[in-house]
Amino acid sequence: MTKLPALDPAALPEKRGSIYPEPFRSRMGDRAKRRLGDACGLTRFGVNLVTLGPGGQSALRHWHTLEDEFVYVLTGEVVLVTNDGEQTLGAGMCAGYAAGKEDAHHFINRSAAVATYLEIGNRAEGDNAFYPDDDLMWAEDEKGVFAAHKDGPRY
Amino acid sequence: MTKLPALDPAALPEKRGSIYPEPFRSRMGDRAKRRLGDACGLTRFGVNLVTLGPGGQSALRHWHTLEDEFVYVLTGEVVLVTNDGEQTLGAGMCAGYAAGKEDAHHFINRSAAVATYLEIGNRAEGDNAFYPDDDLMWAEDEKGVFAAHKDGPRY
Repeated sequence: MTKLPALDPAALPEKRGSIYPEPFRSRMGDRAKRRLGDACGLTRFGVNLVTLGPGGQSALRHWHTLEDEFVYVLTGEVVLVTNDGEQTLGAGMCAGYAAGKEDAHHFINRSAAVATYLEIGNRAEGDNAFYPDDDLMWAEDEKGVFAAHKDGPRY
Repeated sequence: MTKLPALDPAALPEKRGSIYPEPFRSRMGDRAKRRLGDACGLTRFGVNLVTLGPGGQSALRHWHTLEDEFVYVLTGEVVLVTNDGEQTLGAGMCAGYAAGKEDAHHFINRSAAVATYLEIGNRAEGDNAFYPDDDLMWAEDEKGVFAAHKDGPRY
């Protein structure tokens, strides 16, 4: 039985769901996250343990303006898609995406087995994310950030 | 064969050594790091894959003023030492240390086998680290930061 600052990820609830509007949310498939960093009281960066079922996606293909991201595959196999195409990553492989680099990326699980990976990202005020493949952007009014089509209308 | 932004950690050199002066440096024992985040061009936080041999230590027991830290055990077994005592962590267990929390921590490998883990920390200008068990502090003059005894003299 661990106690903080140590943590057994299995003790945390799995979070499902997505901030994306439909039809994008459903595309994530069978994806569940355990928020390890938050559970340890971290605020500078997040660390999630992600379980991605067959057919699932880590995210829409995207890049961040102000946030570095890093992923480390723990079990199973995922396909990394970037501007340059596809690469298959197995356990022990990793990838890192520097803030501001316009190389949109995501993982797809094209295998028949569950994959697990760690995803890490720093938290930066004013960060934005762009989605070259999809009709989605983030906009903001006095009530906060919302999802919009690229030509303006809200979802 | 992966290409960036994907990375096979085995393709990176192992870095040995320590910023500590003796007699502390030797206490780290058989410790080697692969700088995964740096290799991917990340600057907001570091991600190291650490191999810690029997008897090795992750660091002197310490806490940071401005940097969150997170560790995830991949293989083997390490002992986490904090202000509250010791806990043994095996593969799949993790720990997180919030910036400014005065709970000094480190890993010791008390097993007969090599352990591996990921260590992650954000990078913050003006960060300092304190060492309650050891006669070490960081000081700074116009030439930069240096290691000193707690009563002032340089190492």
